[in-house]
Parts: sequence; structure tokens; C-alpha cells
Amino acid sequence: MTSLSLERIDATLDANRSKIRKTPALSVPHVLAPTANTVVAKFELYQVTGTFKARGALANIRERVEDARRCGVTAVSAGNHAIATAFAAASVGANAKVVMTATAPAVRVQRCEALGAEVVLAADVHRAFDIMDELVSNEQRVVIHPFEGVTTAAGTAGVGRELAVEYPDLGAVVVPVGGGGLAAGVAAAIKQTLPQCKVFGVEPFGADSMFRSREAGRALVLEKVETIADSLGAPMALPISFALCQEYLDDVVRVSDAALREAMLLQHEQLGLAVEPACAAATAAARGPLAEQLDGKRVGLIFCGSNIDHDSWHRLVSDG
Amino acid sequence: MTSLSLERIDATLDANRSKIRKTPALSVPHVLAPTANTVVAKFELYQVTGTFKARGALANIRERVEDARRCGVTAVSAGNHAIATAFAAASVGANAKVVMTATAPAVRVQRCEALGAEVVLAADVHRAFDIMDELVSNEQRVVIHPFEGVTTAAGTAGVGRELAVEYPDLGAVVVPVGGGGLAAGVAAAIKQTLPQCKVFGVEPFGADSMFRSREAGRALVLEKVETIADSLGAPMALPISFALCQEYLDDVVRVSDAALREAMLLQHEQLGLAVEPACAAATAAARGPLAEQLDGKRVGLIFCGSNIDHDSWHRLVSDG
Repeated sequence: MTSLSLERIDATLDANRSKIRKTPALSVPHVLAPTANTVVAKFELYQVTGTFKARGALANIRERVEDARRCGVTAVSAGNHAIATAFAAASVGANAKVVMTATAPAVRVQRCEALGAEVVLAADVHRAFDIMDELVSNEQRVVIHPFEGVTTAAGTAGVGRELAVEYPDLGAVVVPVGGGGLAAGVAAAIKQTLPQCKVFGVEPFGADSMFRSREAGRALVLEKVETIADSLGAPMALPISFALCQEYLDDVVRVSDAALREAMLLQHEQLGLAVEPACAAATAAARGPLAEQLDGKRVGLIFCGSNIDHDSWHRLVSDG
Repeated sequence: MTSLSLERIDATLDANRSKIRKTPALSVPHVLAPTANTVVAKFELYQVTGTFKARGALANIRERVEDARRCGVTAVSAGNHAIATAFAAASVGANAKVVMTATAPAVRVQRCEALGAEVVLAADVHRAFDIMDELVSNEQRVVIHPFEGVTTAAGTAGVGRELAVEYPDLGAVVVPVGGGGLAAGVAAAIKQTLPQCKVFGVEPFGADSMFRSREAGRALVLEKVETIADSLGAPMALPISFALCQEYLDDVVRVSDAALREAMLLQHEQLGLAVEPACAAATAAARGPLAEQLDGKRVGLIFCGSNIDHDSWHRLVSDG
């Protein structure tokens, strides 16, 4: 018995189909995963909204579409989930008021506004959650969670399902872990499509809630988050996505900010991509802590998102 | 009667196949060609060596492989053709000594050296040609031309042939023009595969040798070249590629450096790409001088190459 069935994954993929892209999965240079036999990357950065987040947000809003249309929706986000929420709300004709921290890259704020959402900037992540709670109390807005819930995972699972169907000879897939919503879905889809395929999660050392939660055997809250990969900076694991990750992930490894920077530069050199640190996490893991476990395998890397402005990108890769 | 037959194009594509990638052609956001019906981009930046140049260089070296193995090869280049020559030489077991101007981005020099070529840096483009001539006189090296010749066009034509076969409903294709080797091949392939499809060349105002040559009716030499798109900065048109462009191109339009910068930023925002200006030229033309001619059509944009270091890219997009 599985907690997230392939039937549900495929039903969500079908229901999302008219709004969501089947993103390309392409052969990429071997140097991105030097011990692998072959390497493909799932270019989920080419999803509408620039990240996988659109898949989960759309699945969630569909479940509560009447409430969403009547009272609007809200979400707290480093930016990518805010964009996805704005997109999903616009898709069903609902109003969105999204809360981002003041440190969010300008490009993410602009994208929300371009999709018709109102953006509320908060001084820090704790204040952001307070503001969201007020929007729920005062305006009865529907909360679209950034990573928790079976519905979210059923949405993100489309990334893994598309990849596994297109490349049935994969021996391992590497997926970034923030709150675990992407990893939960991708791992559930891969394991049920290709039972022999390993699935590895990767977190920054400075935001390793899933790694620590696996060690503890329960979903933990981190005392602090410190990483350049802001969109992997979830300060906690939560029960449902944690349980799915426990069920379907073979392992979770960690990478340093320096390794993320190196992978960002490599992806620019080899693929012309100047993308957010989270989108380089799978490459960083493949070149580092997963080298041995990927040895000789056909490897899939999840490129999960691209939203970063050029000044921020250049500053990050130049700081190393 | 055509000067470059589809049979020759396909024979070259077949002969190149084991060394050259069939590059992906992907749906891209509509904003890249706002008047079009749909937009696809040919990601030739994912060719081995990072640009289309590998196709022509390999076709050329194969024709003179015995001489190349005996005496080595040489080329003058802003960098991309040098990398392609180094790659082609390594592919057939020949020695390469390539001449670049001292202004070439560091990443291009490194790529040549990584492929085993010796790089000679010249003070300017005139001195570069002098050095190449000396290498021919003294060492009997085979010159691999960056853009001239039917064999070069037969190689670059693979870009257009792959695109036209994959997207037979294209109504227009936009291709960057430097010396015209890419445009000659792409246009010949597109026009013979899809006779109804328009093919438009795009040049920077500051390196408009093809535009001026078309006006004059003969291949001209420019007095000066001044553009941020260094790899489109050929100072002249030459007879064979010019004649092929005359035969197969519907029109040649020009774009400013400011429009190239805007297109570079747009491609970063929409696709996460931080690529050389030449790779944004088709987008710049689609958003500017070609807007009317692309109206309502299914449009293909050629993304011709990616080789630029992150500092140079950031400096270029920040200068605007």
C-alpha cells in the first residue's frame, strides 16, 4: 500500500495538463555527474512560473476552487511559491494576496504582480507567517501551502512521472529538497514507475531539515536557516511530506554553499544557464556526496527552477 | 538547380552524426516573438563546443583529413570557430594551432586548450590573419575557414534541416548572420525542406556586411566593425556564402546593441539563459524589425551559441 498512488499522480497530471507544461528532459554534459554512465536533466525550470511550484499550487487550488473564488487565496513564500500561487489563482479566476520576505529577488515580486497578485513584503519569515494568519482570519483566504500535503505531492509528482516515462532506463534520480514537497512527489512517482531506480534528495548544509528529521525519525523544526539557496530554505519538515520522503527516498545528502556556487558556474559554462542555487543542487550532489552511489548509473538530475535576477546571480557566483 | 542540394546537406548530417548532437528544439515563451502564433527555439547552443561552428569545421576537416593529420590545421576566430576547429582536429587526430584576438573571452581560450589545441593570441584581427598566413607558409597547415565555402554551409545546414523536419509547420525562421556561413546553410535547408517557410537573417548594425552586400549586389568588406556581438563581427561577406544567402534568404534585417542587450535580459528572465549576444540576435529581430513579417506565423528562432564567461555577460547586460 502506498500513500500516494500512481493513479492519483496520473489523475493530477491529467487535470493539470491544460495549464502546465510537460517540461523537456535533455541529455547534458557528463561533467555534471562525472561518475554516471549517462546524464539527463529534467528542465523543470521551463515550467510555467519558472519552477515546479505551479504543479502543486494548481492541484491545491483546484481542490478548494469555490472557496478560493469567493475569498481569494494567500501564501507565504521566498518567491517561487508566491509566483505559482499567483498563477494558479489567475488560472481559476481567484484573487491572490501573497506574502514574501523583503529579501526576495525583485524578479520574483515582479512576476507575482504581472500575474495580477498583490504582494505583501514582510520584514522576516516569522512576520510573514503572522501576516498570512491575519489574512486568513480577516479575509477568510484559502492558504496554499508551499510544500505540505498529499495534494501538493500529487502535483509535484508529475515532474518524476514525466521523467520516468521518457527515460525508463534511469538508475538514479537526484532531486533538491526544500520543504520536501518536490522530493516527496518525485520520489513517489519514480519508485512506482521504476522500482529499481534509486532516488536521492539533496539539501544545503544550512537548511537540512529533512536530513535531520530522517536522523530523528520525525519531522523537525530548524533553529536557523543559512544558505544561498533561498528557495531550499524551508525552516522545517512537516508530517505528510516527511512521511512520503521517508517512504520513497533512498537517501538524503547535503552540499555546501561553495559546492552550489561551483555547480552554478559549471551549469553556466556547460549549458549557458544562470539560475538560482536550488537549480544547481542536484549537480552539486552528483559531483560531491553522491559520486559513489551514482557510479555507472544512468542518472537524472532535477533542474527545479530558474527565478533569479542577473545581479543576484552574478553576486552569488562571484562571492566564492 | 540549387547550389547546395538537400542530398549534400543530408550526406553531411549523416557523416557528422557520430560526433555532432541533434540539438533540442523547444517551445519558448511567446514574449520572445510577440507577433508570432507560436515560437520554438533551436537550442544549437547545446551543440558540442557550445555553438553551431562544430558542424562546419568537422565537415571541412573531413574533406582534407590526410593533409590535416600530416601538417595540422589552423584558423582565425573570435573564439567559437577556434573551439570548433580544436574539436574537429581532435576528432580526426590532427594537431590544431588556432589564432584568436586578445579580446576573446577567457572561457573560449580555455575551451580550445582543453581540447588539446595551441592558442596564439593576436593584438587585433589583422595581425591574427597575418599569423595564420605564416602558419600556412611555414608549417603547411590546413586552414579551416570560419564561414566561407559550400562545405561549411553543408555542415551548418544541419541546424536548419533538423528544425524543419521536427517542425514542418514553421512559417518563418530567424537566423543570426556573422559571416553568413550559418545563415547560408540554414536557409538552404529550410527552403528546400519547407518551400513556403520564410527565412530571415539578422545582423548587428555595427557588423552589417551581409545587409550592405545585398544592397550592393556583391560581397563587400566593412571598414569597421563595432558591436557587442563579437561572434557576429565578421568584417566581410565572401562570395560563396554570400551567393547562398542571396539565393535562399528572404531578407536581412539589423538590430542595435541595445536591442541585443534587451533580448539577452529577456532570455535570462524567461529561460534562465546567460548567453553571448549572438544567441539573442534572433529574439531581438523578432521583437523589433521582423515583428510585422512574423505576424501570425509559427516562428523558429536559432539560438546559435552560448560561449561567454559570467563576468563578460554581466558587464554587457548591465551596461545598457
